[in-house]
Amino acid sequence: MRDSSRSVSFWQQAVDLLSDICGSTHVLTDTDILYTYGQDETLGLHFGFDILVKPGNAEEVSSIVKICNELRIPITPRGGGSGVTGGALPIKGGVVVSLERLNRIIHIDELSSYVIAESGVVTAALCERVEQQGLYFPVQPSSKAYSFIGGNVAENAGSIHSCRYGTTAQYVLNLEVVLPTGAIIWTGANVPKNATGLNLTQLFVGSEGVLGIITKVVYRLIRRPAHEVTLLAGFTTIEDACKAVLAIRQSGFTPAAVEMVGPEALRITAAYLSGPLPLVKQGIEAHLLVGLQEDTENALLHAMETVGGVLEKYAAEPILVGTTTLEKERLWKLRFSIGAALSSGGRTYRDIDISIPLSLLYPYLAKVEEITARYQLAVAYFGHALDGNLHTMVMLDQDLDTEAGANAAQAVNSIYAYAIANGGAISGEHGIGMLQKEFMKNQFSADHLALAKSIKHVLDPNDILNPGKIF
Amino acid sequence: MRDSSRSVSFWQQAVDLLSDICGSTHVLTDTDILYTYGQDETLGLHFGFDILVKPGNAEEVSSIVKICNELRIPITPRGGGSGVTGGALPIKGGVVVSLERLNRIIHIDELSSYVIAESGVVTAALCERVEQQGLYFPVQPSSKAYSFIGGNVAENAGSIHSCRYGTTAQYVLNLEVVLPTGAIIWTGANVPKNATGLNLTQLFVGSEGVLGIITKVVYRLIRRPAHEVTLLAGFTTIEDACKAVLAIRQSGFTPAAVEMVGPEALRITAAYLSGPLPLVKQGIEAHLLVGLQEDTENALLHAMETVGGVLEKYAAEPILVGTTTLEKERLWKLRFSIGAALSSGGRTYRDIDISIPLSLLYPYLAKVEEITARYQLAVAYFGHALDGNLHTMVMLDQDLDTEAGANAAQAVNSIYAYAIANGGAISGEHGIGMLQKEFMKNQFSADHLALAKSIKHVLDPNDILNPGKIF
Repeated sequence: MRDSSRSVSFWQQAVDLLSDICGSTHVLTDTDILYTYGQDETLGLHFGFDILVKPGNAEEVSSIVKICNELRIPITPRGGGSGVTGGALPIKGGVVVSLERLNRIIHIDELSSYVIAESGVVTAALCERVEQQGLYFPVQPSSKAYSFIGGNVAENAGSIHSCRYGTTAQYVLNLEVVLPTGAIIWTGANVPKNATGLNLTQLFVGSEGVLGIITKVVYRLIRRPAHEVTLLAGFTTIEDACKAVLAIRQSGFTPAAVEMVGPEALRITAAYLSGPLPLVKQGIEAHLLVGLQEDTENALLHAMETVGGVLEKYAAEPILVGTTTLEKERLWKLRFSIGAALSSGGRTYRDIDISIPLSLLYPYLAKVEEITARYQLAVAYFGHALDGNLHTMVMLDQDLDTEAGANAAQAVNSIYAYAIANGGAISGEHGIGMLQKEFMKNQFSADHLALAKSIKHVLDPNDILNPGKIF
Repeated sequence: MRDSSRSVSFWQQAVDLLSDICGSTHVLTDTDILYTYGQDETLGLHFGFDILVKPGNAEEVSSIVKICNELRIPITPRGGGSGVTGGALPIKGGVVVSLERLNRIIHIDELSSYVIAESGVVTAALCERVEQQGLYFPVQPSSKAYSFIGGNVAENAGSIHSCRYGTTAQYVLNLEVVLPTGAIIWTGANVPKNATGLNLTQLFVGSEGVLGIITKVVYRLIRRPAHEVTLLAGFTTIEDACKAVLAIRQSGFTPAAVEMVGPEALRITAAYLSGPLPLVKQGIEAHLLVGLQEDTENALLHAMETVGGVLEKYAAEPILVGTTTLEKERLWKLRFSIGAALSSGGRTYRDIDISIPLSLLYPYLAKVEEITARYQLAVAYFGHALDGNLHTMVMLDQDLDTEAGANAAQAVNSIYAYAIANGGAISGEHGIGMLQKEFMKNQFSADHLALAKSIKHVLDPNDILNPGKIF
């Protein structure tokens, strides 16, 4: 959708004004280039827009926002484009602001354990850089090779390690943000303990670009754990796998990762990869992958004994242990290929990113199986089992206007309803974006949503910034 | 200050309306009772007000807020009254809403590891109750015997264990809040991973009662560590003690507590307690108390070796180890008597609750010594060393109108300025309240403060709720 309600000369004027700010090489209108920036990783969706701008610093972002606000041009901020709920899709056209040139790591304070970096730094680049100093940023989403840290903050990204280390939110100390007015603020301070005024930092974390454009991030870091192993366990039933997850919780020990692969995800991914894979065989319906990260060999041995003992009680086969990089990669291979496998062959899945209280792990999956069976839909689930945050992928290979499409929508609704009724959240780590916003009214009361909207309105009265998202 | 601009009949009408909501036994105007509720633990301050109300549930709180909003009566919400920055002081008179009757622990989900409780539950009662189920709430402020969990949330309280476990904010999953309009909302969901809409939960955490009245809290819990010891080390200089703290950080191991006692705090408290105390002797200028909490004996031994080894390098005497409850109490006794010692003999201290990046621990203390020496002021510091959050107590035994008083104010200003210029925060855990609000303009830009105020205004356009705090 390009905005045809405005004249060619209006857009030419906008291009000129933006070129004055960033230099004309960083203001683009070429159709091919804009096509790439009109999509992210959401269901193959694409939106047309009018101007792509690549500012070089926060001051340029500020000037862009002021111009767009004055001319009432919608702005969609964009990081690495790895989102799966449409947070970076320019659904109202207008200007896309790509943060790709804000890619400097500014300062690492090793003793105080924080890093200051611009929001367009690639997640993996930041992780590698801090690891050179023995530090560790533990929330590394699977998109880390190309996602930007600003996008991670804007979506409050999770990772396979969130069960132990938490999500992005727990690491954000301070943010530099350009407000919809063009004002540039720092939200907090560079310290882990802070009780100074309203927590604007956490208001911007997870705000999906609707309240401001993040230009710098101050992340708290931890020491890099020295030792790491992977365990892989196979189970006869998903119920046994769930029992093992709950038993890990009850052991009192929290591994660095507890990832589940459900029956359909296992079958599809094994077929997609072909060739022999560990614990892929008749009678194995589910996998658990457990990551252990400890500071000492003794602690690692203790962790292996504790978790291994729990897994053995429920597993169908001996537990596999990966200690070398190659061994670990072999064990994780199937888990990390699920995304590619599910999207192969032109299939489309709706990723239900629900987060539920852990005690409901098996009841939730049983409910999902029941609902999808009722509507004759394929469902593949996998993910962050100890967080109660499973990616529940419902296959949508039907035209939504058909009866089958209506059934799929009804099934998705029923799954969300179960989670909400039981204290869960409709998004654990992917955000609301444009894809899940219809369910916000189920999650929250009218008074809650009115308050959230009024906060959006007070920051962005002209609804310039990432319009059509969350609300 | 009672509000004399309004007539006796106005207040009688208010009492009648509030009695209709809560029952007349819970609406109080007796002078003696009101006197108690007109103070907290802030510098001996006291404020008069007009009506004390003790609602029994969120619906009653909602009705009270609606009435007060209609009649434009200021409301000060009150927990256990343990605050030290005046957050619960009714500085504009009007109505104090005490949450003391909202004292029920509603639900504990052991497997999912969360508790739902009303905001008037005493911190220690909550901790004890969850420990009966093998769970643990690690952020236990020193006021836990009488502080309320709602107050802990409203101030984002810390504890001696925050260096390992974080502050209250990191444990709040969801809140029930009564807004200034009277609307009752839930802010989040009962799950640790949540990327669903704006983070209203963390907006209310640390908001010091200016945005809403918290009526229920959902806390995430962890497993209770099975083993615990205390180490006490004495140092010849504060610089050695600081070096030991930084070396602990560099060891990569994070103890459950690293508390410092500086020279003046040590001298005053030793004199206050009298009798023999561990490592109180000629040539010992500073203490570090290290708490270790681990799941296994092996892990505890490793922690003792690691941290003990670091401490020995800098300590003046052999490290003392407390393993039994009695031994631990003996080691902690001096640290936990500092507050009482400093406030004995009619002395008043201004608690500067600054949080600084850890690498500046010693430079900060050297600066504090330099500034207070210049103005000939007594200063005693102690507290959460590994967090960079030391309570820096500047003695204010002068009339503030004298030259000495002006000097004290100037010294306090200079200490804040140093922290702010170096990425620190003016409050690590006590909040802003009425006491620190004059420094907000130093911490934050005008644009930041304008945004924070506009959020306050959109929630509370009549400035009814805890007026005169933070802003």
